Amino acid sequence: MSNTVETQIVKMSRKDFEDFWPTFEKVINAQKTYAFESNMTLQQAFHLWCEIPQQTYVAKQGELVLGTYYIKPNAAGPGDHICNCGYMVSEAARGKGLATIMCKHSQKVAVNLGFRAMQFNSVVSTNEVAVKLWQSLGYQVIGRIPEAYRHPDKGLVDSLIMYKKLDQ
Amino acid sequence: MSNTVETQIVKMSRKDFEDFWPTFEKVINAQKTYAFESNMTLQQAFHLWCEIPQQTYVAKQGELVLGTYYIKPNAAGPGDHICNCGYMVSEAARGKGLATIMCKHSQKVAVNLGFRAMQFNSVVSTNEVAVKLWQSLGYQVIGRIPEAYRHPDKGLVDSLIMYKKLDQ
Repeated sequence: MSNTVETQIVKMSRKDFEDFWPTFEKVINAQKTYAFESNMTLQQAFHLWCEIPQQTYVAKQGELVLGTYYIKPNAAGPGDHICNCGYMVSEAARGKGLATIMCKHSQKVAVNLGFRAMQFNSVVSTNEVAVKLWQSLGYQVIGRIPEAYRHPDKGLVDSLIMYKKLDQ
Repeated sequence: MSNTVETQIVKMSRKDFEDFWPTFEKVINAQKTYAFESNMTLQQAFHLWCEIPQQTYVAKQGELVLGTYYIKPNAAGPGDHICNCGYMVSEAARGKGLATIMCKHSQKVAVNLGFRAMQFNSVVSTNEVAVKLWQSLGYQVIGRIPEAYRHPDKGLVDSLIMYKKLDQ
């Protein structure tokens, strides 16, 4: 990320997703962080990331796509006041605070959409960067699912359920 | 349930679901146990209960539908070895052990389908009958989601995440 060009977060278009697809494909092929199928097509991934969720955003500098996140209710009916989000950052933009920027943005969007809390259902316990980041942003571990994730190097590892009540 | 007619658990047909619909409708209208929309049509409910899941079963005595459950992976890709099930019992059949029978049946089906564990994502904490039943069948509370469910009488109540490793 350049410091001279402003990062903008706007609704993600099909074109933005196509630009981001190489990163998305690497993330799902690595099978280390997301509980997604590794062999999804671009169309299946677009459906999952941009059509099923309530809203999907992209972080860009000019035309350069740096990252994306979605937001959706984590449950229906009497449980639809808690949202769920997923975030991905391009390799070039990692380690520069973009996940933090997107997460804070998503919390504001969540409140505007009427959500009272945010829940992550499957944070892979070996993904220490993510766990520490979410904790630094106020998310608490409210559950631990034993052996929930088949890690390619580490075998069956636990997943964490994390939660943050949102300031209204 | 009569003791003289055997209870059979078989794959649920569209006709079975239509027969069960009055119970299903009461359960979702009560808004006390399931995080489902209360205003679903029969077709939407059929899609949710019988088409999205991997398999759906019905418990019957002759042509009388007593209860039903679905089974599906609780996550995709590297998380698809843990399943999720949902159970419903008709009013006439409650308090007679049918949920236990269906749950034990579902555990066998789960193992046959290759699942290693079963997870419930949203057991409403005030649904003490369910919580005690699952605990008696070996499920542990592995997480508690604060204020996850809008109960019509009790306001915002917690939901529990429950988990059982399955004997292979």
